Parts: sequence; structure tokens; C-alpha cells
Amino acid sequence: MNYKQRIRAIQARLRRNQIDALLVSQPENRRYLCGYSASDHSINESSGFLLIHARQDPWLLTDFRFQQQAEAEAKDCRVEPYPKGLLKLLNQLLPDLGIRSLAFESHYTLHDTTQKLAIMAEKLAINLRPLSGWIEALRLIKDKDEIDRIRAAVILNEQIFQHVHQTIQPGQTEIEVALALENRMRTQGAEGPSFETIVASGPNSALPHAVPGVTAIQANQPLMIDMGLILDGYCSDMTRTFVAGVTDVKYLKIHRLVRKAQLAAQAEIRAGIPAAKVDHIARKIITDGGYGDAFGHALGHGVGLAVHEDPRLSARNRSHLKAGMVITVEPGIYLPGWGGVRLENMVVVSEDGCEILNQDHTGLDL
Amino acid sequence: MNYKQRIRAIQARLRRNQIDALLVSQPENRRYLCGYSASDHSINESSGFLLIHARQDPWLLTDFRFQQQAEAEAKDCRVEPYPKGLLKLLNQLLPDLGIRSLAFESHYTLHDTTQKLAIMAEKLAINLRPLSGWIEALRLIKDKDEIDRIRAAVILNEQIFQHVHQTIQPGQTEIEVALALENRMRTQGAEGPSFETIVASGPNSALPHAVPGVTAIQANQPLMIDMGLILDGYCSDMTRTFVAGVTDVKYLKIHRLVRKAQLAAQAEIRAGIPAAKVDHIARKIITDGGYGDAFGHALGHGVGLAVHEDPRLSARNRSHLKAGMVITVEPGIYLPGWGGVRLENMVVVSEDGCEILNQDHTGLDL
Repeated sequence: MNYKQRIRAIQARLRRNQIDALLVSQPENRRYLCGYSASDHSINESSGFLLIHARQDPWLLTDFRFQQQAEAEAKDCRVEPYPKGLLKLLNQLLPDLGIRSLAFESHYTLHDTTQKLAIMAEKLAINLRPLSGWIEALRLIKDKDEIDRIRAAVILNEQIFQHVHQTIQPGQTEIEVALALENRMRTQGAEGPSFETIVASGPNSALPHAVPGVTAIQANQPLMIDMGLILDGYCSDMTRTFVAGVTDVKYLKIHRLVRKAQLAAQAEIRAGIPAAKVDHIARKIITDGGYGDAFGHALGHGVGLAVHEDPRLSARNRSHLKAGMVITVEPGIYLPGWGGVRLENMVVVSEDGCEILNQDHTGLDL
Repeated sequence: MNYKQRIRAIQARLRRNQIDALLVSQPENRRYLCGYSASDHSINESSGFLLIHARQDPWLLTDFRFQQQAEAEAKDCRVEPYPKGLLKLLNQLLPDLGIRSLAFESHYTLHDTTQKLAIMAEKLAINLRPLSGWIEALRLIKDKDEIDRIRAAVILNEQIFQHVHQTIQPGQTEIEVALALENRMRTQGAEGPSFETIVASGPNSALPHAVPGVTAIQANQPLMIDMGLILDGYCSDMTRTFVAGVTDVKYLKIHRLVRKAQLAAQAEIRAGIPAAKVDHIARKIITDGGYGDAFGHALGHGVGLAVHEDPRLSARNRSHLKAGMVITVEPGIYLPGWGGVRLENMVVVSEDGCEILNQDHTGLDL
């Protein structure tokens, strides 16, 4: 990964904006810029902050517990632990580095942290500047190395899905299948699932974010599996819905409508198309089929270091797709009491179309 | 759980502070007050906000995807979805409810969210008030029902540890053992692990937050297992360190010193003692034994709906322990290149001492 180039891009933007340094708190942004892979247990328990100086090498400020890992991974950074907390260290480090203006990530800094930063900044006569989305703007467009990693994450995810899919029997519980999938992720080299695996049978599949439970998988009812993994830092995300047993007319009708919406959207994705238009293409097909109210979420989202990132394929996103974006295409129809069908692929946007990263066709075309 | 009583306590405090409503964003606080158990994928992807009105029933504001779950779990709340986002809904709901002053959780609201709230508040002539820790203050002291749930989580955690412990053989990988533990958590009824299970062999055990990897477990070296689960919403957290094979003199010396520090701290815990003093008792023993620099974290932390919550048993915490607090006691010694020993129990503070919730003695007293 070209960490040095990414850091230089941020440093140049800092200088253009006359900011001396940026404190990066968002975990995927941190990883994107320096390779440090620790996750945060929660936003209140950070495993580190990257301090990007506009004119000097970056610093990775971290907790004693993560110091060895930080030094091993963030080769381009000076690693400095904060045994008495981040603010105590900044109080000393910012003046030492001659920093007179400090930006922080407004979208990943808690209100009470900014209050404490503001008190420190006033004392040190530092100009504090909230900003948002600078690193996400770089992350939007994936380079070749990133697309290769995402492709590998998609392929491994499909291999695991296909392996476990063969073993699914009515009577097994949702949680058994979810565990079989997640275990295989870990033993096959993934860092872990990219989100909690969804295995939802029958009416449970009407909940777009169902949590797998002790429900036994019913024959002749929809079974929705939404799964993804993290491999070398990059995420995959795929949904397949099928019936273990006999497929009835209602299921067929709904499944085919969802698939039609997915294919239509995939056919139109290319650099330059508005994100909202792609959502509209799929939504119109489902609405015309009579199920518009049952498709209550956006058509898709970006995938990269985070499993949900920009761009959103939603009616509200007026921005245009660009080559190198990686997005999901996942229309769905959810009918409370009956169940749901969602079909999700990942694609890479190119100048004249898109590459569908998924090869798996399990139950897609009925 | 007595959700009504908890809501009433917050409503009374709101009225005393002349605040019309509080927007609760922190996931465990939300669950504590209304029973809604959805977790947040991240702080940027909330699964809902609890709006506590000072004089009326609470509202649970949520996403379409979680509406069914919210209605099933939060029986005392009016559930209202926000198809166009939280702010759009608040813009309409706050005037409808006559809210003229709105508090938010400063410690779990992002800076850029507060900026958007501020713009809305100005438009609606609403007084916006950051506050922090009100619900955490209630959560500090566990009631009988909560202690029963925590005890059940500790017991199940130990049963799983003991079951897997019997099967551990040198040559197995860390990740195999971690998966065996986490799988059994899920099949035995836990909601899941309360944090990523740590299985760290040999030198890896010198990293207090080691991630289990493909390292084979070495005979005659320290093996550290730090594990916890969530059962009925409540967490457990336990660490055991032992040697699979022959225990050498250095290991024995270090292990006994850590255990001595743990026993000394447990013996002094009671209502009224300063948290910092408990930390000091354990730290002094390890320092006097020559390993003070190798014990780089606090002695312990509260456990409840969150696996890490207040009170912290650290040198910086001047507050006093109170009956009904549930805390960990987990001294450790970490020697880079060699390994580490940490021993962790959970205890309930009482007026005249503490109840040690852990019954497991695997390898504690050598």
C-alpha cells in the first residue's frame, strides 16, 4: 500500500488550507494512511490517533497496550504512547512541533472530546479547525492494489458461502449456519466477518437486519444469508436468498422482481451516472411490480476498508459515480409475516460500465 | 428489569434541571432505559435514539430496518421510524411535543451531529444542552436483578472456559482455541462474546490486547486466555494464565506475584475505599516485587451492560467504591519477548467487603 503517497496528499491539502496538523481518529482512516490495523473497541476506547503534520513525518499516538503493534505496522510513523491520555501528550507535543492550527475529524470526534480540545487549544493559542471527509474522499476511489484485495475478499467469501451452502438442511438453526460461516472465515485466513452474519429463515427474513437465532430453518420458506469478511483489511459483502425445498409461485414472483431490479441497475452503472439514478432504476422496477413500499432501504453502498462507506446509492445522493468506486447493488422486498428477498453483489465502477466482482450464481436466476 | 423506574429517575432529574427532553444515543444507555437491545454497527450507524420527555412517555426513534425489533422490545416507548433521518423527524416532533430545551449525550454524540442539532435548535428556538454521565451514574450501582444476570454470565463463561481448557494441547493454534470458546458461547445461549477473545501463547501474551493468530501454542510457555460473554444483555470478563506443560521458576515467580497482588486488592475492596487506593494496593506489591514498569494498565474496571464501564480502578480515579458496583480485579505483568501473566476476577462491592463472582480456580494458586 502506498501510505507515503496518501500522507503526502493530505499534507498538501493541509498546507493549501494553512493548517499545521490533522488529528485522525477514525479507525479506517488511520489504517488507510499508515497501515496500523488495530480496531477501536468503541469510540470511547480508541486504540490510537494519527497526527499528520503538514511538513513533517506523521506521528501515531497510542496506548501502552497497542505500542508493539503500532511500531510493527506503522513503519512510516513515529510511535508515541500516551500513558496519561491523549490530551496530556498533545499538550506537550503540539508546542514542541510548532503547531499553531490543528484540525480534527468532526465526524469521528465526540462532542465532549472537542470541548476538552478547545480548552487545550485556547491555553496553547492553537486554532482548532473541525473538518470532515478529507480522507474518505481519497478512500472513495480504490487503486489497483485495493481492488485486488477487495476481489480476493469477495472470492474467499463466495468459497465459504458455497462450502456451507451445500450442507444446509431444514431443521438446522439459523445460528448454526451463521457460526459455520464465521468459523470458516477465520480458519480460511479472514480477519473476521465484516459485520454480523445474517442467516434468516421464513418470516425472520422480513427483517433487513435480522440477528440469527435458534429458529430452525424451515423447508419451502425463504432463507436469506447476508455475509461478508475482512481479508487484508478489505471487506466483502454478499446476500443470497433461496428456498431450501419447494419454491412456490409467490416466492418466484418476488425473487424474479428483485433480480430484475438488480440486473437493471448493474446494466446502467458507469462513471458519470448519478448515484440517485441507479437507485431509481432498481426502485422503479420494484415499484412497478407492486412492491415499492416493501423496499425500504437504499440500493447500495460503497465497500472498502469499511463495509459501509461512501458512496451511498440512495435517492438522496446527487453525486455522480466515478471509475474505481466499489459499491454493492442490493435491492430487496420485505413482507412482514411472510419473509423477504434481498440479492446483493459488489461491483467496481469503470468508465464504460462496471465489473461485477461476484462470480457466485447460487439461486440468482430462477 | 424496572425500566419505568429508571425512566422516572431521569425525568425527575430533567425537571430539576428545567430541561424538557433528553436524546439518548449511547447504545447501552438506551438498552438500560427501555430494553431495546439492538447494537450500533458504529457510532455513524445508530440503530436508534431514545427521546426522554420530562413529563410524557418516552419515544424510541429508529430506522425502518429495526422497527419490528424496537416495537417488540421497548414496550414502554412509542416507536417512531425516521425514513428521512433523525433530524428530519426531530424537526417535526420537538415542536409537536412542546420541547423548548433539549439535552444530548455529549460523550456519545459526534461533533458534526451537534453542529446539525445546533442549526435545528436555533431555527426552532430550542435551547440545546450537552450533558454527560446521567445514565451511567444510574448504571454504576447494579440492582439485584442485574447482579443475578451478571452472575449468570460469569458462571456460563467459566463453564465454557473449563470445557475448552480440558481440550487444549500444545500445537493447536491460538485462533482454534479462541473459536472453540466463542462458538460454545453462542451455542450455549450467550448473545456473543463481550469482546474479542484473547488467546495468547508465549511472547504474544506480553501484548495486553493480543489478537489470536495462527501461532501454535507452545508447551512450557505462558498461555493467556481473556474471555467474556454477553448473556441477557450483561457481560462477563475473566482472564486466566497458565502453562501447558512444565512451569519454570521464572513463570512461577511472576504468576505468584500477580496472584498476590490480586488477592491483596480483593481483600481490601469494600464500600468507601477510594478506587485509586485499590489500584495502589495491587501496584505496590508488583512494584515491590521488581515489576512495576511491567504493569502498564489500570487494575480494573466496572462491568455491566458494557464490558468496560465505570468505575475504573486506576491511580487517577479519586472516587470511592460503593455497594452494588461490579468491578474486575486484573493485575498483570508483561515482559516483551518472554510473555505475560494476567489474572482477572469479577467482584461485587458490598458494605463490608466484596463477593468474588468467579468460582473457577484453574491454575490460580501455584
